[in-house]
Amino acid sequence: MTAKVNVGLIGAGRIGRVHAENLAYRIPEVNFGAVADVFVEAAEKCATDFQIPSHYDDHRAILDNADIEAVVICSSTDTHAQFISEAAEAGKHIFCEKPIALDLAKIDQALNTVEQRGVKLQIGFNRRFDPNFKYVRDSVLAGKIGVPHLVHIFSRDPVPPPIDYVKVSGGIFMDMTIHDFDMARYLIGSEVEEIYATGGVMIDPAIGEAGDIDTAVVTLRYANGAIGTIDNSRKAVYGYDQRLEVFGSEGSLVAANNTPHNVVYNGPESVQSAKPLNFYLERYATAYLAEMKAFVEAIQQDTLPLVTGMDGRIPVVMALAAWKSYRENRPVKLSEIS
Amino acid sequence: MTAKVNVGLIGAGRIGRVHAENLAYRIPEVNFGAVADVFVEAAEKCATDFQIPSHYDDHRAILDNADIEAVVICSSTDTHAQFISEAAEAGKHIFCEKPIALDLAKIDQALNTVEQRGVKLQIGFNRRFDPNFKYVRDSVLAGKIGVPHLVHIFSRDPVPPPIDYVKVSGGIFMDMTIHDFDMARYLIGSEVEEIYATGGVMIDPAIGEAGDIDTAVVTLRYANGAIGTIDNSRKAVYGYDQRLEVFGSEGSLVAANNTPHNVVYNGPESVQSAKPLNFYLERYATAYLAEMKAFVEAIQQDTLPLVTGMDGRIPVVMALAAWKSYRENRPVKLSEIS
Amino acid sequence: MTAKVNVGLIGAGRIGRVHAENLAYRIPEVNFGAVADVFVEAAEKCATDFQIPSHYDDHRAILDNADIEAVVICSSTDTHAQFISEAAEAGKHIFCEKPIALDLAKIDQALNTVEQRGVKLQIGFNRRFDPNFKYVRDSVLAGKIGVPHLVHIFSRDPVPPPIDYVKVSGGIFMDMTIHDFDMARYLIGSEVEEIYATGGVMIDPAIGEAGDIDTAVVTLRYANGAIGTIDNSRKAVYGYDQRLEVFGSEGSLVAANNTPHNVVYNGPESVQSAKPLNFYLERYATAYLAEMKAFVEAIQQDTLPLVTGMDGRIPVVMALAAWKSYRENRPVKLSEIS
Amino acid sequence: MTAKVNVGLIGAGRIGRVHAENLAYRIPEVNFGAVADVFVEAAEKCATDFQIPSHYDDHRAILDNADIEAVVICSSTDTHAQFISEAAEAGKHIFCEKPIALDLAKIDQALNTVEQRGVKLQIGFNRRFDPNFKYVRDSVLAGKIGVPHLVHIFSRDPVPPPIDYVKVSGGIFMDMTIHDFDMARYLIGSEVEEIYATGGVMIDPAIGEAGDIDTAVVTLRYANGAIGTIDNSRKAVYGYDQRLEVFGSEGSLVAANNTPHNVVYNGPESVQSAKPLNFYLERYATAYLAEMKAFVEAIQQDTLPLVTGMDGRIPVVMALAAWKSYRENRPVKLSEIS
Repeated sequence: MTAKVNVGLIGAGRIGRVHAENLAYRIPEVNFGAVADVFVEAAEKCATDFQIPSHYDDHRAILDNADIEAVVICSSTDTHAQFISEAAEAGKHIFCEKPIALDLAKIDQALNTVEQRGVKLQIGFNRRFDPNFKYVRDSVLAGKIGVPHLVHIFSRDPVPPPIDYVKVSGGIFMDMTIHDFDMARYLIGSEVEEIYATGGVMIDPAIGEAGDIDTAVVTLRYANGAIGTIDNSRKAVYGYDQRLEVFGSEGSLVAANNTPHNVVYNGPESVQSAKPLNFYLERYATAYLAEMKAFVEAIQQDTLPLVTGMDGRIPVVMALAAWKSYRENRPVKLSEIS
Repeated sequence: MTAKVNVGLIGAGRIGRVHAENLAYRIPEVNFGAVADVFVEAAEKCATDFQIPSHYDDHRAILDNADIEAVVICSSTDTHAQFISEAAEAGKHIFCEKPIALDLAKIDQALNTVEQRGVKLQIGFNRRFDPNFKYVRDSVLAGKIGVPHLVHIFSRDPVPPPIDYVKVSGGIFMDMTIHDFDMARYLIGSEVEEIYATGGVMIDPAIGEAGDIDTAVVTLRYANGAIGTIDNSRKAVYGYDQRLEVFGSEGSLVAANNTPHNVVYNGPESVQSAKPLNFYLERYATAYLAEMKAFVEAIQQDTLPLVTGMDGRIPVVMALAAWKSYRENRPVKLSEIS
Repeated sequence: MTAKVNVGLIGAGRIGRVHAENLAYRIPEVNFGAVADVFVEAAEKCATDFQIPSHYDDHRAILDNADIEAVVICSSTDTHAQFISEAAEAGKHIFCEKPIALDLAKIDQALNTVEQRGVKLQIGFNRRFDPNFKYVRDSVLAGKIGVPHLVHIFSRDPVPPPIDYVKVSGGIFMDMTIHDFDMARYLIGSEVEEIYATGGVMIDPAIGEAGDIDTAVVTLRYANGAIGTIDNSRKAVYGYDQRLEVFGSEGSLVAANNTPHNVVYNGPESVQSAKPLNFYLERYATAYLAEMKAFVEAIQQDTLPLVTGMDGRIPVVMALAAWKSYRENRPVKLSEIS
Repeated sequence: MTAKVNVGLIGAGRIGRVHAENLAYRIPEVNFGAVADVFVEAAEKCATDFQIPSHYDDHRAILDNADIEAVVICSSTDTHAQFISEAAEAGKHIFCEKPIALDLAKIDQALNTVEQRGVKLQIGFNRRFDPNFKYVRDSVLAGKIGVPHLVHIFSRDPVPPPIDYVKVSGGIFMDMTIHDFDMARYLIGSEVEEIYATGGVMIDPAIGEAGDIDTAVVTLRYANGAIGTIDNSRKAVYGYDQRLEVFGSEGSLVAANNTPHNVVYNGPESVQSAKPLNFYLERYATAYLAEMKAFVEAIQQDTLPLVTGMDGRIPVVMALAAWKSYRENRPVKLSEIS
């Protein structure tokens, strides 16, 4: 039996607690020793709820602990790049939530440190581990639909985030579409070369006042000639809408939403079925666990993580290109973004 | 080009008008010359609506017309057997609505005449011509699911018939289940040997007072060892529910309801889709046309009709067995009914 | 009872025969008196098959017949505008297949004549009459999903047309997407202001050599702020793919493909269901009949046709804008065309 | 925070290991201290795999341990009743797999001891905790479909069990249908009064030689007048088929199979989707966890378990009635079984 991996968690907010629960109870290969959060109450509550031996208000306490081999970074986005660098310097393997940073210089510095120190870095693009989407990707790469021609991703949230969050989020393309940019690459294993983004403020004027948009359609041109679209809305009243479709020369694959149950009610007015699982914590519960298991396995078996640092960088480039395209209302090549 | 078939219609009630419209407008191979109904106003209105040259209050006017080669009998059930005999004597080919009669002696007499006169007789088990059910039957007989083990038929009406009709209908097994008895035979091409019927009055006490039941579950034992069930209700609030399933050694086939459209509405409360097509005029519109085309084709090409007189007799035997089983609360062999 | 409408058909090719069958057998309100085709054999065969009294090799024979009140124009695209003008001059009501013409000057001349002569003109955008799409449109306009934000149309053919046809078709945007351009307007009742079209030759190099593309994604900006996409492929191996989705502030509506039956086969390898109805003759059989009934009704009741001449012109403008956008790889405003 | 519940496991076979994994990793409220199995290697492997401190070859070691408050009995069926009695005598709360025993005298003795000692007993009817079925039951009891009229349960295994198991299983009604008998009661909250069972050997003659059948259809008459059917097959080639339907005066509820993913593949031959989750370990993974959580909660909060000892006894009565009905080919009242 392989030795357990000693893991520490940095950041005990919402997504941090998702990973904490998985690390604590659902991955026997992990020894979950410590949690840190600048809000020490959050760290303490997390430690209590998930039976973590130590908690701190400073992530350095984790990085300085020689027994800890790997860290899971769930702190605020503006700290990601720095914490990655620090953790790499401390020789820890790193799992980090997306995005690495909102600008490329910071990302490149962090990735550079990771490479120099030879630690593993996995970025939290959890949707790659969703059973539906993974099945589509695996089938596409196995040639089931021949040559991919068209990719469509539908990704709509049930409710917009708070305006305060919107202001620091990097905007819809950096905060929300970034998952879809990653998915677009993942699904057919080809890079995107050009992006045309359009959109608007259709849901809440306050989002527009914050300099962001709440609805967007992005067109992608892939290196292999395929074309993709991404459909984003910050508010689907029926819940978290996460579907996609890949069409190729020999067929197509279509992934639908997941639901809490599959019961159909036939009533006097209509036939009704369940709304989609709402929200990402439910929809991607399986994926969050699977990505963390994959991270632990990559450490134990010394293999390349399934979502690399470069996989974390490219969607940021795409988001920057999307913003440029949106603002200039023209297709923008990724090569225009350095 | 084959000569047109001259057809006359006897009975211009609801189902008569369905056939009239098909004969008038949708089967170019037919010359639709006459309609008769004891209620001459019904005959007249039918003639006007569907551009039929002649109408009468006496079916004999049609039978005595040497130019008419075939008759479609849609008069009340108690006249079917007699009209079949008369039409056969007159040398007409016959399409007759189900059931032929409520007792076997009358049926046998009619079938005997038909056989002696060598005319064609097709019984109106329209559901055999439904694309869903026909696909199931054809697939089963082609061996797609191996040896059939289990058959389930769901057949629920949206609303009970008027009590006056219930009283003369022969009861649920003779009036409603009779379609399912035919379907049970048709689906797997094996005869039923034993029937166990249970049921009750769950919808309207008046149906019970009329000596009938409104809800029933019938279990069938086939000659080939397969087992079937039929589920009947006189009132499904969501509409006309017509589904079935055949399960075999190598797979199963499941037929769902048809709907007026396939649009799904995703709303804040639920995901909604269309209710089933309601009622038999809509659900089986395709089948009514197909059965009449098949009848005309059998005449033109001098082939055996797809639903024979014996196919009309056996479900009546099954209905009688079902009533006996229900009343004695025990399985009844069809051989007990002579 | 309203008097029957005397109708003549010009053009007895594939789509002409679809209308001929409906006019002959399924619309009792029509008196179908004549057919003309420059290939007189086609006219003759059509007359024989559908029992049409007269056939000609010259459309003038129909236009000169004072008894004929309305004509259905199904000749080749390059004759549409001229025949519309001639028919209008002759005082006939006109049903004409799309597109009216490939250039706007011809269209405007024809529409001008129609207006001057006060005859009715209905354009053959049959998909408006499809029960699924009509249900979506009616629901959207009834406010069921609130304010429309996003529209997605998937429209893929099972096989590309012959190369000879491709060469004279006006290209994918004028020949195929034109239906979707009309649908885009129809679905939410708002005009499109700007189009960005991208695409490529992914299926058959010969299509590229003919100056056309076979795969396209078009992004639409509506006047009301909504955004739409159209997905086109000339070859979906699984059949004719015709789906769409409208998303709004209060929900979404999603229309799926129609299938020849709804039976599900559960087998050892997979669960299988029917492929979409293939091709437009099957998929839109109901719609072809409904549009012709609507045309006849508009004449009988003297109402505005449901698809006007202007409804025929605008999609041509959109197709021209799409070609311009594709060639210049930039969003093009519709106001740039004309 | 409530104190953790100390739990010991008796029986480390297949189902024992399912519970072991849940107890070890997924229920933080449990302290999982010991496992016993007469095959000590099984106990040892279970202890190693799931990090259980102690393992034994004798269940008495667990019952004699005063620190253990509750036991989970997963030993062979013939030991269930005795172990329940012993555990109750030892003052332990008990979770026991179904069936309690194959004869009623043993069951009654065990239940009697449980009652006298005042310990909690929960029977392993896991399907009650399946989200689909629970949703149906909750909706029915909330009145969503009015008065229940008809219940249909489809329950088919992907492969028959080994013949050696068949011989000691009590036969299909006691081993397989017993889950459905429980479900029948659970779904509408009414007791069954009469059973008619039919069936046959359609899959494997060896099952017949072992005195059992492999295919069955059972008809149920409920105390409240409703009628139910159960469809069982030991071999559905497409996988584990677990569906049901409840029809009532105001609508119906239909539960479908669960699948490993929801991707639809549109290919040149057919449209394909995933087969059902196969087998019960996957299909009911959620339910196994939920039932154990419910057991632990019942202990912590001192409430009645959701599946009582009487809920364990009644399905055995139903199975005995079903065998009697099958052998005598007549409906059998449950009151005939003492």
